[in-house]
Amino acid sequence: MREAYHVELENLATRLAEMSVQVADAMERATKALLESDLKLAEQVISDDRLVDDARADCEEQAYALLALQAPVATDLRIVLAAIHAAESLERMGDLALHVAKAARRRHPDPVLPANVQPYFADMGTIAVRLARKVEQIIKTRDVEAARSLEDDDDHVDDIHRHLFSVIMDKNWEHGVSTAVDVTLLGRFYERYADHAVSVARRMVFVVTGRMPGYSSSDA
Amino acid sequence: MREAYHVELENLATRLAEMSVQVADAMERATKALLESDLKLAEQVISDDRLVDDARADCEEQAYALLALQAPVATDLRIVLAAIHAAESLERMGDLALHVAKAARRRHPDPVLPANVQPYFADMGTIAVRLARKVEQIIKTRDVEAARSLEDDDDHVDDIHRHLFSVIMDKNWEHGVSTAVDVTLLGRFYERYADHAVSVARRMVFVVTGRMPGYSSSDA
Repeated sequence: MREAYHVELENLATRLAEMSVQVADAMERATKALLESDLKLAEQVISDDRLVDDARADCEEQAYALLALQAPVATDLRIVLAAIHAAESLERMGDLALHVAKAARRRHPDPVLPANVQPYFADMGTIAVRLARKVEQIIKTRDVEAARSLEDDDDHVDDIHRHLFSVIMDKNWEHGVSTAVDVTLLGRFYERYADHAVSVARRMVFVVTGRMPGYSSSDA
Repeated sequence: MREAYHVELENLATRLAEMSVQVADAMERATKALLESDLKLAEQVISDDRLVDDARADCEEQAYALLALQAPVATDLRIVLAAIHAAESLERMGDLALHVAKAARRRHPDPVLPANVQPYFADMGTIAVRLARKVEQIIKTRDVEAARSLEDDDDHVDDIHRHLFSVIMDKNWEHGVSTAVDVTLLGRFYERYADHAVSVARRMVFVVTGRMPGYSSSDA
């Protein structure tokens, strides 16, 4: 049983790594669509989201098969359940990229963001995409320490997100309520994406090493 | 194995029903705290959230034990996994009630919401709480048809949420950007809470009947 279990777990981890690449690409394109009012790119993210949903369903099926056929216990069981949770979070990251792309499409050909907040979104986008790409690396390298660095990236996104509120709420904000609402929701989408990425990374460390990284496991 | 499995599954369903009551109470109190600037109630929701997190951990442990000791397959396996997903969504609903309570605390003693949007939040709060309470009823009555009615409630929350945007973005909005940002985020918290409630209800139908209700299973 052990060998078949490990082969199947390896396949499942590979599939989750592919999902990480999908949602990293989705957020990279969605951010570019947002910053450059690129309708074609936004449409691509929107139509590709189906592939992320399909990949999540595949991952769940692989995990179900693994549970049903191998009936793992103890740590092995928890590893498979961590993979199921990771797939759910990755799908949610895809949804958040989709929301960003939809905002870009909704305002097209106008830009969604005024020039003075664009750099914040460029930064949050870069970090969010890097977080998702690190998940793939963690699976390839099984590097627990690499996973720790994700917490710093997530803190950085939180800092930018907080600062963004002070920009919107400043008395000198001159872009009106409607733009403030867009910026508020978009900021939240990036912040949630980064949170989910950290949660996925933590779970993937467990999937590939059988040990949880030594920090809080909260992923609310 | 079958009998022990059913007893343990019953216990798990009961625990999930208790969680539904906890998150319904949390949203009821958070909404009251929001509408009446009730700091004490907001503080209670904030400190009680720990209990929801604990309950979720308990549910996961019960589900792990069930999987490890009974090694269910086929539908039985999917039922246990649905329970794990339901517990995760319920915890998330608790977090959303917590966010509402924190907004009430942050602006105290000022009201967060201007008078003209309060009725929308009163309505969304009522429906959100009703959704969570219906989850408990579904477990008690095993009534698949009752679960269908949740879709209508969720649609209603979506309608109010959409309308709220038109109020905020109307040129006659006179409450400034900062209040618009609060209203935007709070609206989203209720909308997400209702979405999660529908997803939990659907899964609980499956947990108690072994059959999925006959509508789309998307819960993004």
